[in-house]
Amino acid sequence: MRAHTAYLTFTTPARRQFVRITDDVQRAVDESGIDEGMVLVSAMHITAAVYVNDWENGLIHDFQVWLEKLAPSGLDYRHHQTGEDNADAHLKRTLMGHQVILPITNGTLDLGPWEQVFYAEFDGRRKKRVVVKVMGE
Amino acid sequence: MRAHTAYLTFTTPARRQFVRITDDVQRAVDESGIDEGMVLVSAMHITAAVYVNDWENGLIHDFQVWLEKLAPSGLDYRHHQTGEDNADAHLKRTLMGHQVILPITNGTLDLGPWEQVFYAEFDGRRKKRVVVKVMGE
Amino acid sequence: MRAHTAYLTFTTPARRQFVRITDDVQRAVDESGIDEGMVLVSAMHITAAVYVNDWENGLIHDFQVWLEKLAPSGLDYRHHQTGEDNADAHLKRTLMGHQVILPITNGTLDLGPWEQVFYAEFDGRRKKRVVVKVMGE
Repeated sequence: MRAHTAYLTFTTPARRQFVRITDDVQRAVDESGIDEGMVLVSAMHITAAVYVNDWENGLIHDFQVWLEKLAPSGLDYRHHQTGEDNADAHLKRTLMGHQVILPITNGTLDLGPWEQVFYAEFDGRRKKRVVVKVMGE
Repeated sequence: MRAHTAYLTFTTPARRQFVRITDDVQRAVDESGIDEGMVLVSAMHITAAVYVNDWENGLIHDFQVWLEKLAPSGLDYRHHQTGEDNADAHLKRTLMGHQVILPITNGTLDLGPWEQVFYAEFDGRRKKRVVVKVMGE
Repeated sequence: MRAHTAYLTFTTPARRQFVRITDDVQRAVDESGIDEGMVLVSAMHITAAVYVNDWENGLIHDFQVWLEKLAPSGLDYRHHQTGEDNADAHLKRTLMGHQVILPITNGTLDLGPWEQVFYAEFDGRRKKRVVVKVMGE
């Protein structure tokens, strides 16, 4: 068994921003030399998400509107008594999920035709990391 | 380390339908010959979910009503400007999660007494796939 | 490849209670002797969650209020026709997620500065289990 670890870093210009990272994950798989296994892609910060869905700007807009409806910013969250103002970012990232595992078959991410991996930032403008852990043979 | 890959296919008669797949996943584990490890079960289409919960028709009904409340169909989603009409299916699958990992101990899915694996289709009536990747020793 | 399986047990005094388990997971990794790999932490009961987020009591309070808003208790759920009264617990655990996978690098959970692992109980006061499956080299 082999393991390979890579870290992606993001400093998004906008506070909320979605970034496609499918190719970055495939690159880590290529570096690992692993042909059969799995790769974990996981946000290391707790106000960001990693998810798999469509690479279509309309849907990405819909996600953002929907997340604001289900987990609104600007409410009087108890978390804000610590001086933070980002409780909604913690909730939004929970709805989207903070990690995915992708199967690797014949050295390639074994994805369906429309599956794309995204990093979703809900409290950006500062350096954040995603860990990519490849495991297999 | 060994790896084994299987694909499950679904063409559900209804647009929205939940299908229990615990036995299909165990079958892939049996085929793999793996005794200790993990199995990833992941929807390859972005309007379907894979989740673990109760095999009880009342609760499955409750899930469907709840998902329609939190992620309604029929709204004026921006994604629909592409000609699609399934933005709600993308949101519903996000709430349910699109993948699970199950531990394998002594060749068997190491599940609690009520844990069952389900495929949840939100835009069916066409062929969809789920990847089952078994990894271990 | 090595695999190691541990089970955590919980009987929370309150029906709903969040418990930090990061150190319990690291202990299972230590026991395994695995330096490079992954560890799956998964609730074996379907009214409990396992998630990664902040160790801050205000935010934990916010999560509980938010979950009650999105998945209220006391509604006339169809699941309750079986005699159960915990349909909302099944929904709440779905929002939080029932499992996480953590990367192991140099024998340690490879977590970001604020990442903590939590067990979230939504129907406690009875014995529940979490499986911890470590896999790697």
